[in-house]
Amino acid sequence: MKRILTLSAALLLALSAYAQQALFSGAQVESPVINADGTVTFRYRAPKAVRVTLSGDFLPPQQREVEMNGRKMTVEAAAVAELREGQNGVWEYTTPFAVAPEMYTYTFSVDGLQTIDPNNVFVNRDIASLTSVLLVPKTGERSDLYAIHRVPHGTVSKVWYPSATAGFDRRLTVYTPAGYEENPKAKYPVLYVLHGIGGDEDAWVTQGRATQILDNLIARGQAKPMIVVFTNGNISQEAAPLENSTGYVRPTMSLPQTMEGTFETAFPEVVRFIDSHYRTVAKKQSRAICGLSMGGFHTLYITLNNPDLFNYSGMFSAAIGTGSEQTAAHKEVYENVDGKLAAYFSRKPALLWIGIGSTDFLYQSNADFRKKLDAAGYPYEYMETDGGHIWRNWRIYLSEFIPKLFK
Amino acid sequence: MKRILTLSAALLLALSAYAQQALFSGAQVESPVINADGTVTFRYRAPKAVRVTLSGDFLPPQQREVEMNGRKMTVEAAAVAELREGQNGVWEYTTPFAVAPEMYTYTFSVDGLQTIDPNNVFVNRDIASLTSVLLVPKTGERSDLYAIHRVPHGTVSKVWYPSATAGFDRRLTVYTPAGYEENPKAKYPVLYVLHGIGGDEDAWVTQGRATQILDNLIARGQAKPMIVVFTNGNISQEAAPLENSTGYVRPTMSLPQTMEGTFETAFPEVVRFIDSHYRTVAKKQSRAICGLSMGGFHTLYITLNNPDLFNYSGMFSAAIGTGSEQTAAHKEVYENVDGKLAAYFSRKPALLWIGIGSTDFLYQSNADFRKKLDAAGYPYEYMETDGGHIWRNWRIYLSEFIPKLFK
Repeated sequence: MKRILTLSAALLLALSAYAQQALFSGAQVESPVINADGTVTFRYRAPKAVRVTLSGDFLPPQQREVEMNGRKMTVEAAAVAELREGQNGVWEYTTPFAVAPEMYTYTFSVDGLQTIDPNNVFVNRDIASLTSVLLVPKTGERSDLYAIHRVPHGTVSKVWYPSATAGFDRRLTVYTPAGYEENPKAKYPVLYVLHGIGGDEDAWVTQGRATQILDNLIARGQAKPMIVVFTNGNISQEAAPLENSTGYVRPTMSLPQTMEGTFETAFPEVVRFIDSHYRTVAKKQSRAICGLSMGGFHTLYITLNNPDLFNYSGMFSAAIGTGSEQTAAHKEVYENVDGKLAAYFSRKPALLWIGIGSTDFLYQSNADFRKKLDAAGYPYEYMETDGGHIWRNWRIYLSEFIPKLFK
Repeated sequence: MKRILTLSAALLLALSAYAQQALFSGAQVESPVINADGTVTFRYRAPKAVRVTLSGDFLPPQQREVEMNGRKMTVEAAAVAELREGQNGVWEYTTPFAVAPEMYTYTFSVDGLQTIDPNNVFVNRDIASLTSVLLVPKTGERSDLYAIHRVPHGTVSKVWYPSATAGFDRRLTVYTPAGYEENPKAKYPVLYVLHGIGGDEDAWVTQGRATQILDNLIARGQAKPMIVVFTNGNISQEAAPLENSTGYVRPTMSLPQTMEGTFETAFPEVVRFIDSHYRTVAKKQSRAICGLSMGGFHTLYITLNNPDLFNYSGMFSAAIGTGSEQTAAHKEVYENVDGKLAAYFSRKPALLWIGIGSTDFLYQSNADFRKKLDAAGYPYEYMETDGGHIWRNWRIYLSEFIPKLFK
């Protein structure tokens, strides 16, 4: 082994010319570390720093009041923990509590400057922000669905479809379940999963752990094998930032044509592409759609405007009732909701599912929508969880929604 | 639009609780910026810092002497540029030269602590290091191959195959060219592409820009449409770090069973999987293999031990002649090279291609290998480029190698 190690050492030297970060700098410390008692230790080496803090969603959230369109809302503000400086300039913080099994994100602040954890290569992008990821899986807990296990894995593909509406090719993420290739005559139901504002076709896979959830639920027999399609809801965009021909452009929330009807109107072209390129059961009975926030808004209106397309619809913290409907370019998509609801429910869809967090700033507009459904006697399933407009809830909703499909 | 922006603002507030980095902090500055004259400006906001420097492979490299197994070698050491503090604590550096079109990586050092550019979400992982990416594409230059253009895009899939050798499922990245789905009777040649030590099935796609190179070369008519398979050469590993069931483990170079014969011996099982799951031309004439560094070493020995499998083989900065062959678990893979070379060349393969940088620490061992080929009169093609053991060269070699295949 001696000579192999010598080669490794030489390669390290050679590679270190350009990739000279955690492996080589004195800054390498172990972080994060899940301790035996369930607490988690975070470390950051910064000998010259005056103050190092940590912000993450495993810390007890603080509430903050904000106003939107004259309506008061409560949002969750980031909690902050102080690290203490120890030996060799290594700052440290250990949670005073066992961290519940979940997937979390966190960042450090070093003298006021945000930074990811340089000793943790598990990083997610959320719009223009990078955050470090901490996954605490535990057998028997929901977070175990988010971990990768030695179960049959589906195939995850980045696929481009020609969008006649957009006038260019656009990217999808497509999950085909384990066994798809080995069973060339089998046909599968399809679930379409939509992201929120500022997201893209990668968001549910990276932040949502959707492909892990699918692999694990299917392996447990808790979900039917299905094809799952993650669309990009920004119709003016070919693909996720850095995956499209615009080159380096800082990701932003304010993309054109996101909530004004074009995406909803164009959605059937995605369904046609999938039905013509995959072995689908191309029927309403075998088609589902769901989405978070803006994607929940999209889900509602795609469903209502195409009452024969989807048998299962899931609205996760849906961004409805915010006023965007009234100023949309394609107002017809959002008009006559009562009539469209009547037409939709007259066809007896298998499931309309609504989930929201009790402190979500969209709680009231979703409560108003449920009141409308209740008044008309329209059936739906409802789940209310702790917390606000956060990925933790969307992973929960997805893992609750999927087992209900195609039974 | 007013109300839509109001919704965005509310979402920003809500999301900012946990994803509160570049979008929200005062640290947001524009970096990097490619200026009209071709120079590039880098910025970093750090009001309290004493010294901020920048290290990247667009700076003129410095040479450093190192020794391996008693042999002196020159490796390229990182060049460093000083940023100057300007207004509002924003440090800045503009290159004194137009940066040549290429793809580069860089990091900042803030008072000795390495960090990525917080204003650039284009980040690559190399083993355990994250680096910021700067892509300078230019029409007519090679780097234009690395950019995404509005050309037909192939599909990029993460696929798991059952490895009898490893005893578990392992992950591949598979590229199928544009048109693969639309031409259900077409069969395609296959290129296998292997990574270096510390890499995985993602490396060629992220750092190597291989799928962009393929899309662009095929769209230009400079390469045949082909299936391309990126393997994981660490046979003891299911998949890339964080994509396998070991959970959070810091990526490392020193994985077991990387250069001792097991991967090479097991390689035909990958070929069988691909031939049985994709519409391939399952013949030697339509099969190619190439790899960088350790992957070049793997390429050589997979080729020599299976002389009827590949018609085209490419060794990019191959890690041969380092001594690992003599201590391998499966010595037979590396023994009788002269006899295996004779058997291989007697079958008149279409192409053995060798590329290396003039300052690569493996230059001499590759020169020795070429001397052996020359002495025996075996034909091969050779390319020598500037620079050392770096991704810039491997992207060049791949984009030179691919057009030569399957003609």
